[in-house]
Amino acid sequence: MAGFADRLHQAISSIGTPALVGLDPRFDQLPAEIVKRAEANSSDPLDIQAAAFEEFCKRIIDVVAPLVPAVKPQSAFFEQIGPAGVLALQRVNQHARRAGLIVICDAKRGDIGSTAEAYAEAYLAGEDPNAAPFAADALTVNPYLGRDTLMPFIQKSKERGAGIYVLVRTSNPEAGSFQDHQQDQQRLYEKVAATIEEQAAEDAAANSSEYGCVGAVVGATYPQELTELRQKMPHVPLLIPGYGAQGGGAGDVAAAFTASGFGALINSSRGINFAYLREPYKTQFPQSQWEQAIEQATLDMIEDIASQTPAGALRS
Amino acid sequence: MAGFADRLHQAISSIGTPALVGLDPRFDQLPAEIVKRAEANSSDPLDIQAAAFEEFCKRIIDVVAPLVPAVKPQSAFFEQIGPAGVLALQRVNQHARRAGLIVICDAKRGDIGSTAEAYAEAYLAGEDPNAAPFAADALTVNPYLGRDTLMPFIQKSKERGAGIYVLVRTSNPEAGSFQDHQQDQQRLYEKVAATIEEQAAEDAAANSSEYGCVGAVVGATYPQELTELRQKMPHVPLLIPGYGAQGGGAGDVAAAFTASGFGALINSSRGINFAYLREPYKTQFPQSQWEQAIEQATLDMIEDIASQTPAGALRS
Repeated sequence: MAGFADRLHQAISSIGTPALVGLDPRFDQLPAEIVKRAEANSSDPLDIQAAAFEEFCKRIIDVVAPLVPAVKPQSAFFEQIGPAGVLALQRVNQHARRAGLIVICDAKRGDIGSTAEAYAEAYLAGEDPNAAPFAADALTVNPYLGRDTLMPFIQKSKERGAGIYVLVRTSNPEAGSFQDHQQDQQRLYEKVAATIEEQAAEDAAANSSEYGCVGAVVGATYPQELTELRQKMPHVPLLIPGYGAQGGGAGDVAAAFTASGFGALINSSRGINFAYLREPYKTQFPQSQWEQAIEQATLDMIEDIASQTPAGALRS
Repeated sequence: MAGFADRLHQAISSIGTPALVGLDPRFDQLPAEIVKRAEANSSDPLDIQAAAFEEFCKRIIDVVAPLVPAVKPQSAFFEQIGPAGVLALQRVNQHARRAGLIVICDAKRGDIGSTAEAYAEAYLAGEDPNAAPFAADALTVNPYLGRDTLMPFIQKSKERGAGIYVLVRTSNPEAGSFQDHQQDQQRLYEKVAATIEEQAAEDAAANSSEYGCVGAVVGATYPQELTELRQKMPHVPLLIPGYGAQGGGAGDVAAAFTASGFGALINSSRGINFAYLREPYKTQFPQSQWEQAIEQATLDMIEDIASQTPAGALRS
């Protein structure tokens, strides 16, 4: 069985970009045609939203599948509309897998012992999409509860060719309020980083791979920390949120990559999903061509990353 | 509108105990009659599990509703069986609300900005069970992402008479691996505690209440830390896991309470849910009387807490 890092590496390599498209559906920003169709099929407000989310995300997947290696559905927006939304999330994940995409479910789970194991069972399908209900290749995980609570996720990842991305340095303005707590010159996020580098290095060695199945979330909005963390976690694949709508530019994420262009995925969610509501795409495309706007925004992101980071080397 | 702390206080006061029953269904430990009925109604393994979880939890709720103020469903076990399990969780929460119980959904969510708001919208119904799909009075929340990421949960709690329990000191063996990171004599969990005490105090003052809508999870397995945290967070309602199956005794949790017996909920999950598989109940009750075993285990827990902690004062 191929490990997660190797599968991800292969997907990035063959498509030639580390651009990651987040799926963050918001009902009040959906194209009118999708809302209209969902309203025609149900009178229940939550069922309407769930159906609209499902169609919207599946159509984004169809647009971006030939362009990027992976998508990142945000669980919160689906959970917000209850069980019908969670069913839509499952279908969206399954659709993305069928389209050949790596699926990183952004649910930021974390709990102790056998409860963490239940979350791993729920999400971490790994190589076989049918091995877990939510069919994900990888899951974002919160480390606060402690090192032992990461192990069930890591164990399941090894068994199934799945992966996790542990929150290390998040992209929000007050990310440092707890993550910067500093003992003996080591900030908390650096301690988390050291812990997961150890796990990733062990897994990488076991698979004779460059990277392990334990990744890290590091925000593009903290480029200095990103540079240091890339050096301190040589075996850890990075997931970089905060590019685009949150303010991080391609120059900010250049340090996430090795010279050959590997080592990180750069995520954009709102900037891609709702491109048709933003300039320059809003002017370039009528709303009925919202998929073309999404395609163009994705191509522009890919070009931006290729021209300003070592990931450009992936094209050759 | 009544605030969460006042509603909780009222529920504890009128029923006379701070015992909290966790709902942690495990398929391989369910009573045979429930599994048999679920299997008769479906051939899909996940649908069978979901139906069995729903019946099992609803029947536990019916047994404990006259005895305790609140229940704590563990989301992970429901998510493990996919969307059908999440639908079962919703129905279990709604059933508990109809039975008059406070519902603390243990999902340990956390994310940035508008994503945190989506989680709050999903779970925090507060006073009106219909205000959110998952109908909870309160939600457990992970603080790693930072102070700003707690605010959408706190804001929604204030609007709806809901509450959150922020992870401060968890009950697992390696809880300290990150939570004990120490800067200037202040450990990380103490910094989290100080942050939420500030928020809870502000909310308590606004409502002329003793406690605010921001609670804390502090494990019974760390009695020394629990004692200190109770003193440092006078306006924070506590949720204490780790009693019973995880090894904490009633003596360990005595310090969680004020002299009048308020200030904390003591949780037991496995020890109650699967009492019929454990001594002394396994010998006392045939498996067909699993509900009586659960009732007796709940009564024994209530007695244990009353006799060994200041919560005994609630009975007078």
